[in-house]
Amino acid sequence: MNDALAPAALAPAALAALIDHTLLRPDATAVEVRQLCEEAAAFGFHAVCVNPLWVAEARRALAAAPVAVCSVVAFPFGATPAANKAAEAARAVADGAAEIDMVIAIGALKAGDHDAVRADIAAVRRAVPAALLKVIIEAALLTEAEKIAACTLAVAAGADFVKTSTGYGGGGATIADVALMRGIVGPRIGVKASGGIRTAAAANAMIAAGANRLGVSASLTLIGVASVAAGIH
Amino acid sequence: MNDALAPAALAPAALAALIDHTLLRPDATAVEVRQLCEEAAAFGFHAVCVNPLWVAEARRALAAAPVAVCSVVAFPFGATPAANKAAEAARAVADGAAEIDMVIAIGALKAGDHDAVRADIAAVRRAVPAALLKVIIEAALLTEAEKIAACTLAVAAGADFVKTSTGYGGGGATIADVALMRGIVGPRIGVKASGGIRTAAAANAMIAAGANRLGVSASLTLIGVASVAAGIH
Repeated sequence: MNDALAPAALAPAALAALIDHTLLRPDATAVEVRQLCEEAAAFGFHAVCVNPLWVAEARRALAAAPVAVCSVVAFPFGATPAANKAAEAARAVADGAAEIDMVIAIGALKAGDHDAVRADIAAVRRAVPAALLKVIIEAALLTEAEKIAACTLAVAAGADFVKTSTGYGGGGATIADVALMRGIVGPRIGVKASGGIRTAAAANAMIAAGANRLGVSASLTLIGVASVAAGIH
Repeated sequence: MNDALAPAALAPAALAALIDHTLLRPDATAVEVRQLCEEAAAFGFHAVCVNPLWVAEARRALAAAPVAVCSVVAFPFGATPAANKAAEAARAVADGAAEIDMVIAIGALKAGDHDAVRADIAAVRRAVPAALLKVIIEAALLTEAEKIAACTLAVAAGADFVKTSTGYGGGGATIADVALMRGIVGPRIGVKASGGIRTAAAANAMIAAGANRLGVSASLTLIGVASVAAGIH
């Protein structure tokens, strides 16, 4: 391998600051959520990312730690009316979430109903005006044209970030998708790469491609505290 | 094989009347939902089962056909607060759903928080008192003791049916789970087997084990109209 072509590798602490430390398994328990929060505070992850059921628990567990709580919304299918997404997001923010990762209306996008996709995102945007809003496009299910449309509509509807994947939609983040998404949204909107990122090398490659946030479940291993990870997970 | 031990095979029309004709892929479109409804009306399926986003579309497409619309709720993770589940269910019923398939709070069950599991189901029950309420226990993620607890709590909270699986939780219906669930809930509560049922033989085996409803995506093939299915799907 030609080192001149390798992306610069961030130090573990710098990587940690870009990571949403993620636990979205449907059978996760309160104990596991509290463990996630302890890890995030101990290792300096940007946020914890949890299901809406666990937002209040996570916010309590983090107390005054400088770690955001991120809640997913309409996860992982995105196939519920906009009003439900807006209400779920509003409740998550009331419970302590500062960031919302919502799933788009994938079927509406596939049918070319761009007005519906945009209105769906805009409804969540209006419901949580002060939250950081990330829009999951579920890239593995989309054509290139659909990926471009999804990112364009997300920006138009007021999203702060576009995000590649739920991790439950048949495929995770790819370098090509991250680069495409960064190219569409430009430098002022965030790009979160998520799904299948399990090594520092993969994380650095995503960042080199344009990601400025990473959704990671194997975060401890990724930043090199494998021994702790082995004991906890 | 000893025919005396084989379950009785229902005729296709009798099987169809026990089937919730199901389309829950997150990228399903309105066109596909309308097709699902046409198939259900043409072949006499009991219901169509769709994501909440498509309930109104399905109800319109079915017009006066004697086919129920079933909406999933908190699907497929079940990891959102009870108030969100109740609101999503109420909206689905307002949109035309007569049946609600909700996912339990799996993590709460795993933590032994039975009060939370029961309260979660009861909140949906109160929100949609006139709907047929099916409670998805996601059996593949549960121990036997947890399956028993989940069924017991569902009945206590007013469920009309217990249901094996989302189809997205790492495993579908098994004969053993259906028999266990029927044994717990007794004869007056329904048991819906769902996830991975793709043949008439599998369907009949589930019925012999105690199921009185089947959630099926490959419904046309299952009732022997494979040529139509091949053209449509």
